[in-house]
Amino acid sequence: MKAMQLTAFGADNLVIADVATPSLKANEVLVNIKAVSLNYLDLILLNGTFNGDLVFPYIPASDGAGVVTAVGADVSRWKPGDKVVIQYVQNWTHGSIDAAGNAVRVAWQTPGVLSEYTAVPEHGLVKMPANLSFEEAATLPIAALTAWYGLIEQAGLRPGQTVLTQGTGGVSLFALQIAKAAGAKVIATTSSEAKAAQLKALGADAVINYNQYPAWHEQVKALNGGEGVDITMDVVGSATIGESLLSVKENGFVGTAGFIAGPELPLDIHRHRINLNFIRIQGLAVGSVSAFAAMNRAIEVNDIHPVIDSVYPLEQTREAYLRLASGKHVGKIVITLS
Amino acid sequence: MKAMQLTAFGADNLVIADVATPSLKANEVLVNIKAVSLNYLDLILLNGTFNGDLVFPYIPASDGAGVVTAVGADVSRWKPGDKVVIQYVQNWTHGSIDAAGNAVRVAWQTPGVLSEYTAVPEHGLVKMPANLSFEEAATLPIAALTAWYGLIEQAGLRPGQTVLTQGTGGVSLFALQIAKAAGAKVIATTSSEAKAAQLKALGADAVINYNQYPAWHEQVKALNGGEGVDITMDVVGSATIGESLLSVKENGFVGTAGFIAGPELPLDIHRHRINLNFIRIQGLAVGSVSAFAAMNRAIEVNDIHPVIDSVYPLEQTREAYLRLASGKHVGKIVITLS
Amino acid sequence: MKAMQLTAFGADNLVIADVATPSLKANEVLVNIKAVSLNYLDLILLNGTFNGDLVFPYIPASDGAGVVTAVGADVSRWKPGDKVVIQYVQNWTHGSIDAAGNAVRVAWQTPGVLSEYTAVPEHGLVKMPANLSFEEAATLPIAALTAWYGLIEQAGLRPGQTVLTQGTGGVSLFALQIAKAAGAKVIATTSSEAKAAQLKALGADAVINYNQYPAWHEQVKALNGGEGVDITMDVVGSATIGESLLSVKENGFVGTAGFIAGPELPLDIHRHRINLNFIRIQGLAVGSVSAFAAMNRAIEVNDIHPVIDSVYPLEQTREAYLRLASGKHVGKIVITLS
Amino acid sequence: MKAMQLTAFGADNLVIADVATPSLKANEVLVNIKAVSLNYLDLILLNGTFNGDLVFPYIPASDGAGVVTAVGADVSRWKPGDKVVIQYVQNWTHGSIDAAGNAVRVAWQTPGVLSEYTAVPEHGLVKMPANLSFEEAATLPIAALTAWYGLIEQAGLRPGQTVLTQGTGGVSLFALQIAKAAGAKVIATTSSEAKAAQLKALGADAVINYNQYPAWHEQVKALNGGEGVDITMDVVGSATIGESLLSVKENGFVGTAGFIAGPELPLDIHRHRINLNFIRIQGLAVGSVSAFAAMNRAIEVNDIHPVIDSVYPLEQTREAYLRLASGKHVGKIVITLS
Repeated sequence: MKAMQLTAFGADNLVIADVATPSLKANEVLVNIKAVSLNYLDLILLNGTFNGDLVFPYIPASDGAGVVTAVGADVSRWKPGDKVVIQYVQNWTHGSIDAAGNAVRVAWQTPGVLSEYTAVPEHGLVKMPANLSFEEAATLPIAALTAWYGLIEQAGLRPGQTVLTQGTGGVSLFALQIAKAAGAKVIATTSSEAKAAQLKALGADAVINYNQYPAWHEQVKALNGGEGVDITMDVVGSATIGESLLSVKENGFVGTAGFIAGPELPLDIHRHRINLNFIRIQGLAVGSVSAFAAMNRAIEVNDIHPVIDSVYPLEQTREAYLRLASGKHVGKIVITLS
Repeated sequence: MKAMQLTAFGADNLVIADVATPSLKANEVLVNIKAVSLNYLDLILLNGTFNGDLVFPYIPASDGAGVVTAVGADVSRWKPGDKVVIQYVQNWTHGSIDAAGNAVRVAWQTPGVLSEYTAVPEHGLVKMPANLSFEEAATLPIAALTAWYGLIEQAGLRPGQTVLTQGTGGVSLFALQIAKAAGAKVIATTSSEAKAAQLKALGADAVINYNQYPAWHEQVKALNGGEGVDITMDVVGSATIGESLLSVKENGFVGTAGFIAGPELPLDIHRHRINLNFIRIQGLAVGSVSAFAAMNRAIEVNDIHPVIDSVYPLEQTREAYLRLASGKHVGKIVITLS
Repeated sequence: MKAMQLTAFGADNLVIADVATPSLKANEVLVNIKAVSLNYLDLILLNGTFNGDLVFPYIPASDGAGVVTAVGADVSRWKPGDKVVIQYVQNWTHGSIDAAGNAVRVAWQTPGVLSEYTAVPEHGLVKMPANLSFEEAATLPIAALTAWYGLIEQAGLRPGQTVLTQGTGGVSLFALQIAKAAGAKVIATTSSEAKAAQLKALGADAVINYNQYPAWHEQVKALNGGEGVDITMDVVGSATIGESLLSVKENGFVGTAGFIAGPELPLDIHRHRINLNFIRIQGLAVGSVSAFAAMNRAIEVNDIHPVIDSVYPLEQTREAYLRLASGKHVGKIVITLS
Repeated sequence: MKAMQLTAFGADNLVIADVATPSLKANEVLVNIKAVSLNYLDLILLNGTFNGDLVFPYIPASDGAGVVTAVGADVSRWKPGDKVVIQYVQNWTHGSIDAAGNAVRVAWQTPGVLSEYTAVPEHGLVKMPANLSFEEAATLPIAALTAWYGLIEQAGLRPGQTVLTQGTGGVSLFALQIAKAAGAKVIATTSSEAKAAQLKALGADAVINYNQYPAWHEQVKALNGGEGVDITMDVVGSATIGESLLSVKENGFVGTAGFIAGPELPLDIHRHRINLNFIRIQGLAVGSVSAFAAMNRAIEVNDIHPVIDSVYPLEQTREAYLRLASGKHVGKIVITLS
């Protein structure tokens, strides 16, 4: 089968190779991958800035959607023809994560999905939402599930609460769409009028241009009746975490779901009112298989369609990575396999 | 001031009297009531079937909205001119209910609100939603808050889950509207095509005519991909609780929020799969002040407007009760005070 | 291998047979069963009063502990020599139960464990608590896990709350022991002074002889500072559920974990204050694998030892059932396999 | 009445003054203070390092216990003779904190309690645990309630989980005692063999001398079967937060309850595995009135007695502060008023 391989760090080292189709264990399912989406994690893996010990050749990418083509002898949940999406943290099936559930991540402890076929245990898949294309479904495993798990399962978002989202990356746009579907008010930050218009078109109740408001937590409160928001999802890290903390109200929830500006979080108990306001800072990254299935039902019931920035064929995988690196994208970058 | 008084059991014993305007304690607020709504509870109190020890003359009705006209010496939260709605369980301010919080209900341990003025402690009020009229706001204290507290705070409703509502009474219509605002799928039962059309106009994804399906739990499952719903709010009691229990899935939530057909619940652990499916049967009735305020934010953010069946002037209070007794109403019955 | 078989309904139809040792699938584990405990469920299955369609010959019993002797090709969590306990609801691994998790129960959809060997999927086992013998560990899967899941995971028991337990059966004694380990106050009901002494020796703070107090909810409140308890576990069903409901306070939790007196629950919304007091009636029966493992850690940390009424060799299985049927037991009845 | 007053920053500026006994509003209660305990907060207020805008003369201290001597006209919950403890965050009565609940803290927005009498609203008190002396009860409002609210209400501690406590200050010792009462395993850190012996006497299952193990998270895991603990309460801040984060398992809870070494928390998403392990960092500081009452029931049921380091008469308040500043104390420092 065809597979994309990274032979050394850097986008110039992406090559299409012909490799053996995976053989199946008794509890595994073979999936013909139709579409893949990229995440910031893929970029820092490619660049060598996240895991310097990557073993080459390496098949990249965690987010994939496709069709089941074969099942192992003991598989009961899937049959050929089923449209499916891959679960990123393979063994985290239900409930809260534990060490066993956290042990296997796609494209980390297993090969990535940027290949014609991939083999996964039958518990490491979910049914594709009926209202989505493969390209759309491929955007869900990391970005959408992180937004869902943070907002719905960890923060317990309720209708009428206010959610603050940051920018136009994948997690933030899914957070916006999910929060609106859940009946929340959404305030979004961004850096340009063009992006502000896109955010409003997606349902944002208010948008803040953070270039105009360096201390944007004040503007957040001004737009929220004078008090902080209930929930925010920080995706930038070092550069924003302080403003994120100051943007939430008593008992507020600050999900830390990204680190584009760096992983250091320079917090201060007093200045950020961590104790005084009983703030919760919650490490976030995807969710369980059960949460994924629940999210997909919400996607169907509310007919949510992921925002796709651009779609590239497998042969232009390098261009897809460069688009991601540019920071100019709004929404998800997808690669299709014929 | 003018006040409606019940002088003996029965709708014919409703008379408008001239009584002293309440004097204020230091922590109390005087509210000029503009609109009141009726609940099934008011009907059985009027008829004497619920509390035979009622002391006459009795000012009826629990649900009211109006304007603050005066405040006691120690009141800090309200000022004259504030538009407010009365909290039914006066001392239940936050969190889960306890004995102290449960001690005082409007029109039970205190006079009702069907009068020009009523005095309530400053903690026993909420701000009226900005998008509602007094008539609309007067429908909220019992019916809407019961639906909200059950769905959102007790059942923990999440987007994509399925809610089953029963009929076209106040609690059920609010449950439908709140569930849709929260991103859920809603299946509703009713008895006529006309009402079915109204339910669909309010957002119901599917409607079941229970006259056509006596064992309607089967139809519920057929409309929900073969499995039970996540949550239902039983408002009928004796006649429906069995079907309600059979309509939910594993770990399902059956709120018991009414008893129009009688208060006896003839359950069977095996036949209703109570233990086998880990079903939760939850007594429901309104919520805390804090929950009321949270609901009002959701009403504003999602611009929810209560369904009003009919509006009567104070002088036609008897007709309002008779309309409620007829069972022909869809939504809430309101009485206005000039 | 040797296995106990029921060839027709009734204790006289229990025979020891020589049957083939189970063969292993890739993800299965072979367990050499050392001890088994009986539950009320086993008795009604034996008598034919619960499931008239039982297929004979039938290997009975769900609760077993033993030693792993072989593992399938894909098994990674267990190795020969591991001491283990069998999970009753085999596929319910984490989180809340769903339909897939609820599909397979030991000795119902699979053969029972009253045999020398049994084969179970690697996810359907837990490590045996280090402080227990096989006989003790064999008592855990149904009775202890029902008490644990109800008290800790569903009711969310906190130190200082009051738990009411009923009688001296397995679930109730485990509820008593777990509640005391969790820092709760425990009030227990029973029918004799001898059993009262045993309950006090196990840590009960107060004991009520229900023969002396037919309306024992009044005595419960008298022993609890005048208010209802936070949590009770009803194990009797028809005869006690009314008193159970009247024994809890506002927002109280009534777990329905048994039906010795019959499965009908004749509830009344008013008389039992279901809505007025926001009571939760929760169907209970065991828990997930993850909950089982968590319980076992609590058993180790607090050195809890199950109360064993009596131990029978395999050859006296009939006598063990008769002891259970007598209702004279205090704690669990165990059968050992050499 | 006699009251301690701080006339300028520094322990040398504590003087006993004769001031007017507070007059009562309609909803207030007058409490004759019998004992007061000091917190780290009192020390930094005294030194001027926390709030430079303190208005002098200032009556210090938040933690007090005493006897009700008079009640306002509208007070219904208390009567003269009731033994009570003062709630620190006066208006936070139930549920999660909000802005209104967070507005008034004793000795911050109101006079402190180091005086013969103090007036508080009737909702700002709890009944004193029956098993405690005034000296013991005076230790509860900040240190004990912070430990309780963090462990029980925010982290949801369950029997069998492992809690890591740090040192021998008030919060940490209460966390140890509460965790043991709740059936948890406790690992404690300290700096000397003498303190280690005291910790073990209080029930600690294991003690780590952090001077011997600078990277003590490794030793924590070694003592916990190779995995991180479920919950830790960080009370030191800058110097320990990194080790605290590395000491917890997947989905672990790190309460930040103190800042003795400074309020800066230099976190790193990767190095501290915040996202990878879904860690929750939770700002902590006391709890609601309802939580306080629940804690007091747990204190009574489990007969928990606070660890008191030393007791000073009012005239030696300066010495009490100096003892706190020395860092040599184990447990709480109490001041008594005759």
